[in-house]
Amino acid sequence: MAHASGPSPADLPAACGGFRTEHDLLGDRDVPAGAYYGVHTLRAVENFPITGTPVSAHPELVTALACVKQAAALANRDLGLLDARKAEAITAACEEIRGGKLHDAFTVDVIQGGAGTSTNMNANEVIANRALELLGHGKGEYARLHPLEDVNLGQSTNDVYPTAVKIALDLTAQRLLDAMELLRDAFAAKAEEFADVLKMGRTQLQDAVPMTLGQEFASYAIMLEEDRKRLSEACALIREINIGGTAIGTGLNAHPGYTALAARHLRDITGLPLTVADDLVEATQDAGAFVQLSGVLKRIAVKLSKTCNDLRLLSCGPRAGLGEINLPPVQAGSSIMPGKVNPVVPEAVNQIAFEVIGNDTTVTMAAEAGQLQLNAFEPVIAHSLLKSLTHLRAGCLTLAERCVRGITANRDHLARLVDHSIGLVTALNPHIGYEQATAIAQEALDSGRGVRELVLEKGLLTQDELRRILRPDNLARPHTRL
Amino acid sequence: MAHASGPSPADLPAACGGFRTEHDLLGDRDVPAGAYYGVHTLRAVENFPITGTPVSAHPELVTALACVKQAAALANRDLGLLDARKAEAITAACEEIRGGKLHDAFTVDVIQGGAGTSTNMNANEVIANRALELLGHGKGEYARLHPLEDVNLGQSTNDVYPTAVKIALDLTAQRLLDAMELLRDAFAAKAEEFADVLKMGRTQLQDAVPMTLGQEFASYAIMLEEDRKRLSEACALIREINIGGTAIGTGLNAHPGYTALAARHLRDITGLPLTVADDLVEATQDAGAFVQLSGVLKRIAVKLSKTCNDLRLLSCGPRAGLGEINLPPVQAGSSIMPGKVNPVVPEAVNQIAFEVIGNDTTVTMAAEAGQLQLNAFEPVIAHSLLKSLTHLRAGCLTLAERCVRGITANRDHLARLVDHSIGLVTALNPHIGYEQATAIAQEALDSGRGVRELVLEKGLLTQDELRRILRPDNLARPHTRL
Amino acid sequence: MAHASGPSPADLPAACGGFRTEHDLLGDRDVPAGAYYGVHTLRAVENFPITGTPVSAHPELVTALACVKQAAALANRDLGLLDARKAEAITAACEEIRGGKLHDAFTVDVIQGGAGTSTNMNANEVIANRALELLGHGKGEYARLHPLEDVNLGQSTNDVYPTAVKIALDLTAQRLLDAMELLRDAFAAKAEEFADVLKMGRTQLQDAVPMTLGQEFASYAIMLEEDRKRLSEACALIREINIGGTAIGTGLNAHPGYTALAARHLRDITGLPLTVADDLVEATQDAGAFVQLSGVLKRIAVKLSKTCNDLRLLSCGPRAGLGEINLPPVQAGSSIMPGKVNPVVPEAVNQIAFEVIGNDTTVTMAAEAGQLQLNAFEPVIAHSLLKSLTHLRAGCLTLAERCVRGITANRDHLARLVDHSIGLVTALNPHIGYEQATAIAQEALDSGRGVRELVLEKGLLTQDELRRILRPDNLARPHTRL
Amino acid sequence: MAHASGPSPADLPAACGGFRTEHDLLGDRDVPAGAYYGVHTLRAVENFPITGTPVSAHPELVTALACVKQAAALANRDLGLLDARKAEAITAACEEIRGGKLHDAFTVDVIQGGAGTSTNMNANEVIANRALELLGHGKGEYARLHPLEDVNLGQSTNDVYPTAVKIALDLTAQRLLDAMELLRDAFAAKAEEFADVLKMGRTQLQDAVPMTLGQEFASYAIMLEEDRKRLSEACALIREINIGGTAIGTGLNAHPGYTALAARHLRDITGLPLTVADDLVEATQDAGAFVQLSGVLKRIAVKLSKTCNDLRLLSCGPRAGLGEINLPPVQAGSSIMPGKVNPVVPEAVNQIAFEVIGNDTTVTMAAEAGQLQLNAFEPVIAHSLLKSLTHLRAGCLTLAERCVRGITANRDHLARLVDHSIGLVTALNPHIGYEQATAIAQEALDSGRGVRELVLEKGLLTQDELRRILRPDNLARPHTRL
Repeated sequence: MAHASGPSPADLPAACGGFRTEHDLLGDRDVPAGAYYGVHTLRAVENFPITGTPVSAHPELVTALACVKQAAALANRDLGLLDARKAEAITAACEEIRGGKLHDAFTVDVIQGGAGTSTNMNANEVIANRALELLGHGKGEYARLHPLEDVNLGQSTNDVYPTAVKIALDLTAQRLLDAMELLRDAFAAKAEEFADVLKMGRTQLQDAVPMTLGQEFASYAIMLEEDRKRLSEACALIREINIGGTAIGTGLNAHPGYTALAARHLRDITGLPLTVADDLVEATQDAGAFVQLSGVLKRIAVKLSKTCNDLRLLSCGPRAGLGEINLPPVQAGSSIMPGKVNPVVPEAVNQIAFEVIGNDTTVTMAAEAGQLQLNAFEPVIAHSLLKSLTHLRAGCLTLAERCVRGITANRDHLARLVDHSIGLVTALNPHIGYEQATAIAQEALDSGRGVRELVLEKGLLTQDELRRILRPDNLARPHTRL
Repeated sequence: MAHASGPSPADLPAACGGFRTEHDLLGDRDVPAGAYYGVHTLRAVENFPITGTPVSAHPELVTALACVKQAAALANRDLGLLDARKAEAITAACEEIRGGKLHDAFTVDVIQGGAGTSTNMNANEVIANRALELLGHGKGEYARLHPLEDVNLGQSTNDVYPTAVKIALDLTAQRLLDAMELLRDAFAAKAEEFADVLKMGRTQLQDAVPMTLGQEFASYAIMLEEDRKRLSEACALIREINIGGTAIGTGLNAHPGYTALAARHLRDITGLPLTVADDLVEATQDAGAFVQLSGVLKRIAVKLSKTCNDLRLLSCGPRAGLGEINLPPVQAGSSIMPGKVNPVVPEAVNQIAFEVIGNDTTVTMAAEAGQLQLNAFEPVIAHSLLKSLTHLRAGCLTLAERCVRGITANRDHLARLVDHSIGLVTALNPHIGYEQATAIAQEALDSGRGVRELVLEKGLLTQDELRRILRPDNLARPHTRL
Repeated sequence: MAHASGPSPADLPAACGGFRTEHDLLGDRDVPAGAYYGVHTLRAVENFPITGTPVSAHPELVTALACVKQAAALANRDLGLLDARKAEAITAACEEIRGGKLHDAFTVDVIQGGAGTSTNMNANEVIANRALELLGHGKGEYARLHPLEDVNLGQSTNDVYPTAVKIALDLTAQRLLDAMELLRDAFAAKAEEFADVLKMGRTQLQDAVPMTLGQEFASYAIMLEEDRKRLSEACALIREINIGGTAIGTGLNAHPGYTALAARHLRDITGLPLTVADDLVEATQDAGAFVQLSGVLKRIAVKLSKTCNDLRLLSCGPRAGLGEINLPPVQAGSSIMPGKVNPVVPEAVNQIAFEVIGNDTTVTMAAEAGQLQLNAFEPVIAHSLLKSLTHLRAGCLTLAERCVRGITANRDHLARLVDHSIGLVTALNPHIGYEQATAIAQEALDSGRGVRELVLEKGLLTQDELRRILRPDNLARPHTRL
Repeated sequence: MAHASGPSPADLPAACGGFRTEHDLLGDRDVPAGAYYGVHTLRAVENFPITGTPVSAHPELVTALACVKQAAALANRDLGLLDARKAEAITAACEEIRGGKLHDAFTVDVIQGGAGTSTNMNANEVIANRALELLGHGKGEYARLHPLEDVNLGQSTNDVYPTAVKIALDLTAQRLLDAMELLRDAFAAKAEEFADVLKMGRTQLQDAVPMTLGQEFASYAIMLEEDRKRLSEACALIREINIGGTAIGTGLNAHPGYTALAARHLRDITGLPLTVADDLVEATQDAGAFVQLSGVLKRIAVKLSKTCNDLRLLSCGPRAGLGEINLPPVQAGSSIMPGKVNPVVPEAVNQIAFEVIGNDTTVTMAAEAGQLQLNAFEPVIAHSLLKSLTHLRAGCLTLAERCVRGITANRDHLARLVDHSIGLVTALNPHIGYEQATAIAQEALDSGRGVRELVLEKGLLTQDELRRILRPDNLARPHTRL
């Protein structure tokens, strides 16, 4: 996972062999001649040998950075600040990245200091070097097209990075929404399939009153749909960006017309209905939208976990458990117990949920730690949220495809449990009174006998009355009587 | 706080002296003759000697229970299921409770097993006994008006309790919204007062570029307003109730017309735009709205904490710190250091934030632990959320009144810091070029000299040019140039 | 719970009527003449109207403060810094507090800014005023015995408060250890009672292999004993104090001999084996021992919660669940379902666990927020830990007394489940081979028939062999064969 | 990061081309002919396309699995249950894995259902196939040496996996302990270097009393040493294993002599002082040691984060902040602000801390979710803890090497702050009285003048007295006077 030893320059792919020399505040450094990244990336890779996971592990973030850089170049070109040929080359480089190319040149660690500066620098350098190539120059010939002066023109990490993170989150969230829809549909299909399967409902793990298995599965589908709505709302908030705020939101060094133009280009490029925050100083320091999104992801996780707990509980068995439903077997369950099959898919989803809830803690801590005009800890916020989104998506797809769709019900067993239940007595309440009902319930419990036979034996109701009152529809959907 | 020893019956107020005998499943029990509660409450008090905090510590919850019971009585009366005289007496008892009376009879612990059953039972008993008195009967004469048969008619804890909790949360949240508005206004007033105070902005705790102190305080005001919007949205979700679902949402034993009538009465009584969930089975088990509200409260907490961190940081001093602003002294700061004054109000708010974030963990765990048709852990969810809401409200009011309103700025000091800052060089970037600017910055840092003098000395810009570029308005609000 | 409106001076008990005037940095204030607290407490009560819960809700903390003040007075007397008569009066006042008196004069809120200064001031004032009375003077005659100059002599909040908090935690933890022992014994007694009750073990909620119910309950007892050891270890760490460090640990203004003397007196007074940290500067800012204790309390909570989950699961029923054990009924379970009894005591303990886990988040946030030479957020750390300790204690006692002791087993049902289980086949593995065993398992599952009959039918083993291999002792304790 | 689409068989490296057919409960499957893994791994890879991170990302876990399998083979050989030639081949395969080979065949996802069964199956299959090769057979010829019958002989995932996880955690923790020692030494070296640098101490971010910068850095070193002790203690607990318990701890199907022998071999192989739990049923379900370890890692994270917060705060500047120390520049800080250098290394460590604290939440949730005889969620526990350990290690090394070692102090600035501080007045307390001291403090604050001059002007002390009292040693180490 993480290995505290970043790649040394010598390890890095130096396709053409040899090195080129680049320069920064701290002096000269050799960069592999074939590398698209430059000295800033090189130093960052050395400074942050933390997780071993490069930022390219989040392709949506790399793509989003390219979108932002492209929009900035176009805006600066429109404003006459950037030479058209440079703008064209930058645009072409960005489009390659958006098409999935050059991602392996995004080598800085997902956990990095500096509020995303290293990721922004990495993008500036890769785009500059690719643009240089497209213009017929060599990598590193920054006098002709500069990572900072041109690619980063009128920008600061502090507006570029949060904007890119938000776009990446939105793109990733849309894919989660799709996966949730798929899972919702899988539950809904089962709800229909099980619409007439009567079973005992349970509260506090104690037999309560009858319902249908269809109602139970419908609840899971409805919960997912509710959560999809909440996620959509959180996405709307995440689409408010601070482009043009530069260092601290005052917009220093950005052209006054830049924000509006860049935002318009960014909307065109991404197809997302992005809006610009009213107050860029506030927006630059405010991690609230991330916390909100994380809270919603936690909500989704909590309910997915509850649903998986239920699936595991209802399929507990095969002989000494509730045994109400059967999950489809997907692998042998035990290295020692022959024939054992376990609910491994829901178990995996439970673990994703626990991870997402943990990520929410990380996001909370990081958001709270922001100081004054900036939150320096956005890299771990971005990493955590992108993990949560992608893992939840994987969990929804897997649960739908490898579990829910194959669930079957033990209909006879369920019917028997209702028939023998003491909970039936609740339905008799309005007919024989609460006190009489309580006495029947207690006698049934003590004697092991059934509610029906006791009621008949005592002549409290007739066979016909009983049959009518305890008709499945009456029990599970009393109000459809109307 | 908590003392693991609930009041024994003998300790309880037995105003009239003596005891009356009540009966439940487990047999007979003596209840103090003067007590409004009954045998179910008595057992619950004995069963849950956990925190020592009775449910009456949340007056909004007691009030909300009375609202629900009143609405239920009226609906049942309308349906012809409850005698008009009984309904009237129940209504009168509920109105007394809503007026603040009888709260001390709500004695069950805030942490209790049973999904709120004991709180519901407590309400049923207190209302029944008070209604009995109003009808001229003695307490405990349940044959004439029964806690379960009449007060709880057509209801289950599983629809009454969540409905009451949601009403209580909404009422409490409205008061938090008001307090946040007050705090927002306090920050906004300071933003105006400090609108022309130039200062250095900071990113990553390093000097960045200039801004105004007014912009800094405006950010706090804006953040609060954003959070108010999010809280209002979460409140809208919390207003979806499951009244009429009874035990598991199927509505068994409730009259088909009950839900609509009860909801209508409840809207009238509370004045809240409550809606009924589409699917009551789903709604009965779904704790999602609580998790969402908790997530938003955490968001508020995170940002309040960040704001308080900033206030403490900016007032760090008086001589060896940033010393930008002064918080009003509200008490002596030290038992050993004469003259020391500490930022105690922001510190208290930080601690409230930490508590709220902890409460969110509790709510998350409790929500995830729900099983099948019910979440049995709503009491700790309710307790945690009500604590978070009331403590945040207290924090906002205290911060506004005892801190923000009295903040003053050290204007000269702030101006000096801008003047001597290296960050000024960023504004010269477009005029002297990034490379030249970097060289100036480094020479300033090494020599301890000022950016202005170095630029003049090197003849890079004239006095006039410098004056114009570094005009406060240009620095802090570059885009107003337009 | 919290009401954002601290008692105004007029509300406070002014036994003798009238007011006395006290003075601090901010000027004069009227204090109720009968009040033992003084101006510092008064201001703090006004400044922190947060939770409505006064520090006296934690009697162990009030007691611990009295212990520290008494030790300090004796040390200062020994060093010739405090007049013997004053020391005697202070000692007498402290002993009254330790005896449970005057606690209601500790009125500052449990959540307060100032690193505990207000609590320390509250203690200084109450002790001074009571000592003044004992010396025959009036309250407020501080010229004769001063809260700061005498009661707080050579002390700072920053060594007094953490020391008192640690003593309070240790005292409270000892009571939790006792309660855990009681619960452990209750489980152990059941383990013995159920030693011969064969049942199916389950992994991943699927039938696994046989075991005894005694083994299951023994596990709960053993877990508690393990956790007791961990708590004892955490207590040992909490006993390292920083007395004598004064403001930041350098010991400025404390006599060089003070630390050793005060610690010795404190050991005598409390009976606890307190030690002084090697480096007081480090100790003054280090909240590590609190985090460690909180982590151990979380561990206890996690395992208690798991145990309660198991108890609820095993007693799921009465007819449609696992139905392995019966929890004793302690109250009626439902306001709508006659005869329903719920596992309310384990449910309450689950909720305590969730609260403790939430408190751990609060403690973590507060500990992380410490800055430079001090952690200003110890009040919320103390409040959270004391709540966790007392609520866990209440939970253990309640669980032992109102649940575990009354648990019974459904022996016949359990035996039947083992007999009909497919898991028996695992024990046949070494005798008929894994492949053969798998085939038997699958046939049993498909046909609904028993493993025994299939093995006999196929002639794989004789009746005698089967009887021997599947002897309960062999199944549940295979290694006792030796 | 995660991509919800596991490699399909066709994607997998099929070195020799073609496929071999393997069989399990669910039927036949083609496995790439060159693959060391088999059908169980194949299905698991398909079932858990969650994070995209294979279990080989934790090399210590793969190594630990090989240790356990080797010990099991040797124990079974000693007991005469496993053919010596098979045992030898298994041992040779395990040693290759321990030497770093074959890790890429461990392809199951780090997040997987099944309590680690898939990881255990993966190990069984890789070891079996490599052993088959070493014996001169082809991969997949399981009739000659079987993954389950031979490699997994007398074992269950439920004892193998937790044992391997614990060994992996211990190995990884030892590397963290080393890194913490390095960081401790770096701080200690600075403490020595800064031993005579007087500075103002601060409590609650307000100027308090003087200390040395050496004392401040010594605190960081001491905290790390304390935390190392706690981590060592947690490691001791993690070394208690449940080998030989098989499925649920009863040891069914393991030879009675197996546990002792396997543990002895495992101690020899790993060099770790592993012990076997007294009660294997309890040990099999108890995740307490993981929670405890996670709690200690959180403690370490909390304090590392606090330390990094301090470093960032003390180096706040260069001109408008505290400016007490300088962190070595390691990269350019800004894409827009020339010359800006940020505290990026501490910022990265803060983020690691937030991640570790989040991981603790994940571990807590997963531990609490264990049910009955097993915790099915150990994979996410293992993944989280291994991430925390390795990332903390990376953070400690990076912080030591790229930050702490290069820190310098602004000695003159620090001396000036002490000289002009009002906090000096605390030291005069015992000489001029608290009241006089307060008056001086207030006058200094109001007038902006120095404490020294005011005291001299008022004739309260002589120049000589002042010089003696305010001698650096007296201020920072008053007790060395003795």
